[in-house]
Order: sequence, then structure tokens, then C-alpha cells
Amino acid sequence: MVTPGPTDAVQPLRFEDGALLVLDQRSLPAEERWIRCDTPRQVADCIRTMAVRGAPAIGIAAAYGMALAAERDRPAAAELLRSARPTAVNLAWAIDQVVEVPDPLARARELHRDQERADRRLAELGAARFEAGDRALTHCNTGPLATAGYGTAAGVLRAAWEQGRLGQVWVDETRPLGQGARLTTYELARAGIPFRLVTDSSAGALMARGLVDRIVVGADRIAANGDVANKIGTYPLAVLAARHGVPFYVAAPVSTIDLATARGADVPIEERDPSELGASVPAVNFAFDLTPAELVSAIVTEAGVLEPPFEESIAGVAAR
Amino acid sequence: MVTPGPTDAVQPLRFEDGALLVLDQRSLPAEERWIRCDTPRQVADCIRTMAVRGAPAIGIAAAYGMALAAERDRPAAAELLRSARPTAVNLAWAIDQVVEVPDPLARARELHRDQERADRRLAELGAARFEAGDRALTHCNTGPLATAGYGTAAGVLRAAWEQGRLGQVWVDETRPLGQGARLTTYELARAGIPFRLVTDSSAGALMARGLVDRIVVGADRIAANGDVANKIGTYPLAVLAARHGVPFYVAAPVSTIDLATARGADVPIEERDPSELGASVPAVNFAFDLTPAELVSAIVTEAGVLEPPFEESIAGVAAR
Repeated sequence: MVTPGPTDAVQPLRFEDGALLVLDQRSLPAEERWIRCDTPRQVADCIRTMAVRGAPAIGIAAAYGMALAAERDRPAAAELLRSARPTAVNLAWAIDQVVEVPDPLARARELHRDQERADRRLAELGAARFEAGDRALTHCNTGPLATAGYGTAAGVLRAAWEQGRLGQVWVDETRPLGQGARLTTYELARAGIPFRLVTDSSAGALMARGLVDRIVVGADRIAANGDVANKIGTYPLAVLAARHGVPFYVAAPVSTIDLATARGADVPIEERDPSELGASVPAVNFAFDLTPAELVSAIVTEAGVLEPPFEESIAGVAAR
Repeated sequence: MVTPGPTDAVQPLRFEDGALLVLDQRSLPAEERWIRCDTPRQVADCIRTMAVRGAPAIGIAAAYGMALAAERDRPAAAELLRSARPTAVNLAWAIDQVVEVPDPLARARELHRDQERADRRLAELGAARFEAGDRALTHCNTGPLATAGYGTAAGVLRAAWEQGRLGQVWVDETRPLGQGARLTTYELARAGIPFRLVTDSSAGALMARGLVDRIVVGADRIAANGDVANKIGTYPLAVLAARHGVPFYVAAPVSTIDLATARGADVPIEERDPSELGASVPAVNFAFDLTPAELVSAIVTEAGVLEPPFEESIAGVAAR
């Protein structure tokens, strides 16, 4: 069952009849199952267990979660939701937007619409960088499922496709949870965009063969200096892109920029349960890595495409 | 059921009662199942389907496979076995060793013993590069299962461990078939060597955190100029190692060097069935990638540790 959201793509969140319905992304694409949340705690559980994931989407989910708290319980709800995951700054940002307003639900709905508008705008700005036939590689999932809107990196790809500028997408599997293999392929197939799935370790071989024209990824937090925290595996892509002269774009709304974080090393990196790797042996499961600003060609936001030096260009949009 | 081979580690091949028994590595570690081969065709099938894999091990399997052919059928058997997989040069090399001898079985057994000796020697030479407490990262599987001996890269790790020079091993999962997650962890656990499994996309984050002191990998073919064809995902490791100043060693017997291949670009790279990725979507599945010689710190062989410039050091050992 697919419910049309703000775009024709599948949407991960619906607020209906006083409850937040969360599409359980862990069971996609095999099954479209909705989880009903009546309390902030249930929303926090959905965020922590990654039933809903993607930096912008968990922010919106948390904002709706705040609307489920009684007024006197809002500070506790804010604390609970804020601590659900540590790396994506959108989570804390969205909670800050709703915690002290008279009508959190109205503000949450507004944030949701704002996200959709920001996504559309940054997608257009990013797509303008593409040339006809470009083969783009992406990592993890950054489409409607990840933003509750049009998508960030995947929105750029979709806009480029709609403008006839995109030839094909290379989709990284994105171990251990397979957001690329399960979610991005699902979204691209629905949108009719040609793609090929590859293992996370294939990008180097593809670039060495000249098969990648651009890389576009999302972000969970962008530091004031332009360092980018994103899904583990992003940093190796950026290093390979620099070696092969492939432009490396980060696409994210301004709400992903955290001026309070001076540089990447200051971003708290979540370490998740090793059992996510699916092997009953000792394992380490960092969920994110850090890409230094020097490896980023441009940061595509709804307020403009930011170019190096990022300290300046970021200060120009994030302080507004 | 574990049958002791030339080492105390599990061995992938046994020639008994006129048949080659192949340990089916596809079902490890869950199950130790043996496939009985009475014909060269059955051995070729085991190689093609990766019931047996690892450059040295498929060479030895093919040599035993030749011993299963009637004398007049040997040229056809050689052709069949040679074409089972294209990238590892050890396959063709081992077949060449047995195709014209009066007693192929005796020669196959000799190659098997030679491999064990070469592994032991290169392991000692490689281990001498380690310093106490070193944390080494490895990719794919290069232990006894991959060589039918002591192991190449994993042999170096084991020797370093036995000499008290190894702190811990980081094991890449090695998608899509999980040779690291399934086989290397299995071998390391049996040997009592401490390890942590990580996703293939984690190496960059580990190196950036200063958690990797050395990288050691095997090889499927080494070109005359030192370029290395090895399991997909090796090249990104080498690029990251160069960026972080981490020594990057390739460990392989001299039989993996192919003087007839001038450079990496001349190596045939096998593209396997996309279904190995386990997703029912369009996919591309290159089995190997190429690491340029400039990114290799040293090549550890039984004839010595080869240093750059590799054209010279390789010519010195491979022509013997």
C-alpha cells in the first residue's frame, strides 16, 4: 500500500488522527508496514531502531513526536527524542523549532512543508551542475524516505533525470543495513531512473574505468568549516573522487549545517550494535565517517551551492 | 568434521582414493561439506562456482584435477580447467606445471607441498615487518582455505601473531560473498588471533582514527610492473593507505607474478553474476580491481620482500 505524500514518491511519515504513522524502512522493499506512534517515546524508538532514518526525516519525525507530548511533558519529550541518535544535527534542530511554540503540530507540519520546498530548491540547484548523460554514483539513501520530502542527493539525481541530464546512477549497497540496496533502488525504480547496484567496495574500480562522472551524497551534519559527517563509506568515496578528478557534491538543507560544530572531529559519531553486521563474531560498527572539507567540491543547499572556501560560504547562509 | 592438512588449520583440498575432495567454502562456517570430484569437469565446476577459491588454492585444485584426466584427455582437461576463472594467474601456471609430466598426481602433490613451503617462508618474511602491538587490516580471505597451505596475507598475520608482533586484525566483510566475514574470521578464531569484523566501507574511518598500522592483502595476479589484481575493494584500501601513511603490503607466492602481463590494465577482470549481490535489481559485480604499483609499499614473496621499483625487483625473482 502506497500513500501519496507531498510528492508522488513514497513518503515515510503521516500524521493522522492524532498519531504519527511511521513507514518501517527496515522491512522495505519487501513489505510496506506502518508503525503507529501515540507517544514521543514510540517516535524515539522508531528513530533509534531506524524504522525511520535519514537526517531530515528523523528531524521531522521528532517534531511530530513533540506534538504527541502534553504541554508539561515537552521538556522530557525533547530530551528523549534528542538522545535517540547523536550524529544528525537535524534532529536537535527540529526539536528546537517546536519545543516552545504554542502549537507544536502546526509547526511540525510547517517544518515538513519547508523540507519539501528546500529539497525541491536544492535539487534544482544541484541538477544544474549535471551534463547530459552523466553517470552519478551515490551512497546510502537520500530520497523521499530519508527527508520526508523530495530528497537531497537523490533529489538532485531525480531533478537531473527530469531535465535530461542524467544517464545512469551507480547505487552503493551501503552495508550493513543496505539503505542503497533496499531503499535507493526502490525509489529509483519507482521514478523510472536507470541504475545499477554495486558493492560498497566497487567505486574505486568504477572510477578507475572512467565510469563515474559525479558523486552526490547527503549529510548528517556539516561543520562550520565544511567537514561532512555522513554514512560510513562516504569518506573513501571522497578520497577516490579526488584521485580521479570526479566532482564530489554534498547535498543537504541548511538545517544540516551546525555552526556550533567547528570541525568534523567535533561531531559525535554513533557506534551501533555490531549485530547489525549479521555475523556472530566480534565486530565494530561505526555508522558514520567524516569527510574533510578539502575533498568536497561543493555543498548544495536550498540557499545556494556553496563553494570553497567553505568557512566563508557556510557562514554566509547558515547565519541567516 | 575437520581433517588436519599440512598445517593444523582447516585445509580446503584432499586427494584420496583416486578422487579430489573439495571443502565447499560457500557453506562455511555454518557447515563443513565436502564435494567429491572424479573428473576434471567436476573440479572446474568447483573452481567456477567458488566452492574452492583463492588464487593458490584454485591452482592446486586444478593440478589435482589434471590428475583425474586420462592421458589422452589431458589437453582438453587443461583447457577446461584453465577457463574456469580468468583473473588468477596461478590457475594457468599450475596447469602448465602438470600438463606434460608423466605423473600429474605426483607433480600436483609436489605443488601442494611447495605452496605450503612458500607460504611459510613468505609469512616469516612479512611478519618481520611488524612491530609489537600492530593492528593490521586485511581484505577477503588469504589463509589456509585460500592457498591450501599456511596462507599468504593471513599467513603473514599468523606468523606475526606467533612472534608476538600482532595486536589485532581488522577483517573486511568482503562483499558480495563475504570471504572476510565467513572465512577469515573462521580461520582467525581457530588460530586464537584477536580480530574485529568491519564493513568494507569502514577502512577509511579506521585509518583516519589512527587504528590501522598496516594493511596486508593477497593477490590474484601481479603484473611485471608491480600492478596488483586482487579482490574488489583492494584498490580503495591502497588509496586510503597512501593518504594516511599506512604501509600497504601485498603477500603472494612468486607463482602469482605474471611476467607476460606488462601492467594491471592487461589483466582480464572477471565480472561475476550480479545475483551474487542478493538483490533482484540491476547490478554490476566486478570480482577484482587493480591497484597500481605506486600504491604498494612492498610485495612479500617466498623469494624475498620486493621493494619499489618493482619492475626491477620482480624481474629479479620471477625470471628464476
